[in-house]
Amino acid sequence: MSHRFYVPGVHAVGETVALPAEEAEHAARVLRLKVGASVGVFDGRGGEYTGVVISANKHVSVRIDGLGTPAAEPTVSVTLVHAVAKGDKMDEVVRDAVMMGVAAILPIVTARSETSVGALARGRRTDRWRRVAVASAKQCGRAVVPEVREACALQPTAGWLDAVGIPAPRLLLVEPSVEAGSSVDASRVPRPAGQTVALLVGPEGGWAPEETAALAEGCQRVCLGGRTLRADRAALVAVAALFAVWGE
Amino acid sequence: MSHRFYVPGVHAVGETVALPAEEAEHAARVLRLKVGASVGVFDGRGGEYTGVVISANKHVSVRIDGLGTPAAEPTVSVTLVHAVAKGDKMDEVVRDAVMMGVAAILPIVTARSETSVGALARGRRTDRWRRVAVASAKQCGRAVVPEVREACALQPTAGWLDAVGIPAPRLLLVEPSVEAGSSVDASRVPRPAGQTVALLVGPEGGWAPEETAALAEGCQRVCLGGRTLRADRAALVAVAALFAVWGE
Repeated sequence: MSHRFYVPGVHAVGETVALPAEEAEHAARVLRLKVGASVGVFDGRGGEYTGVVISANKHVSVRIDGLGTPAAEPTVSVTLVHAVAKGDKMDEVVRDAVMMGVAAILPIVTARSETSVGALARGRRTDRWRRVAVASAKQCGRAVVPEVREACALQPTAGWLDAVGIPAPRLLLVEPSVEAGSSVDASRVPRPAGQTVALLVGPEGGWAPEETAALAEGCQRVCLGGRTLRADRAALVAVAALFAVWGE
Repeated sequence: MSHRFYVPGVHAVGETVALPAEEAEHAARVLRLKVGASVGVFDGRGGEYTGVVISANKHVSVRIDGLGTPAAEPTVSVTLVHAVAKGDKMDEVVRDAVMMGVAAILPIVTARSETSVGALARGRRTDRWRRVAVASAKQCGRAVVPEVREACALQPTAGWLDAVGIPAPRLLLVEPSVEAGSSVDASRVPRPAGQTVALLVGPEGGWAPEETAALAEGCQRVCLGGRTLRADRAALVAVAALFAVWGE
């Protein structure tokens, strides 16, 4: 497979596009691509093209000469609503979620998250996660770059899910040992009729009782097997399990 | 949940056991457990106990006073045959596989692995992976510590699978784009009748053609969705998908 570059502005065969600064830097200095090299270009919204490098100095230009074949997109659109994990772990969560084919990611701050919306903004974390999403799309072959929304704080109220526009049905991932009675195993979750679904995943310390109580009305509780999953792997395991059950 | 310790020699309620040196060090210096603290103790073969610390100096002793409830074990016994990944990535592979409930791990060196059996032995990597397996079992709640076998080199011959004792049926994970015609999606793999299965996962660069050819006779080729998975996540995704489909 030739190297792929993310060029949001590309839109037709025949045109010549300049790679954005970061992509050009990577192409020229790291990969040392020369004039004449075959490359892939994608627009982040599903468009995939093939092209040829026609200049490679400080700026790198690509002549688009055909349509490419990106990795297949799932038919079910998953919005991952994920409590921000400690340290750099959220980078891995975003990378893995994009690789699995989720459609959008909403980072949230919960009662047991060890951060705040303000701290995330000061650390420009959303920018970082968006770069991770682009890198992961390049690596896994997707031509779609999932939207990473600005982080927000979970409000433990009945109306919060609708207020922030989280699609239904909504699956709330819980630990099997804690919530056995009220949850269904992932292998028994039916394929969503409307082709959208939201998956809510808590932080290292789990959901606070007032959060599970507030979310009980709008969410189906789901558990995954009998072992305790690491917080930075739970979303990956859940999406893998659900997609397999739904035949994605 | 109280802290859990791995004591291979524990075998009955009523006895007093000394924690092994590394576990004692962790209990006394890191966790600073005192006499009277409630702890969990497991034997690595499925036995789980509760106990009380009765001495905590250089040596830590625990009086076993009851049976505990470990995390449920899958009913299908999975042997993960995994090409050694680059750098420290195999640590993550082992950690995740134990968390998912695999029964045994056989690290292999393939044509495209960037290491050798000799280099792994000199680096005492098997010892390291065994420590990772114990740590993961403690974290995920399992009382079973899966066996991590000594690494061996994949021989691209028809008899190799039997020669090294890899259980059947055998599932060979392949990239969907490369091998589409000859592979089945994970969501269509039937539950193994004999309750054992082996899953073979290649290195970053994939299987060499002579390897897939030699393994074709003894293995079912399996692919996972349409995206290219990172080599250090493929096993995790595969086990999550298969267990979900099998209702584990």
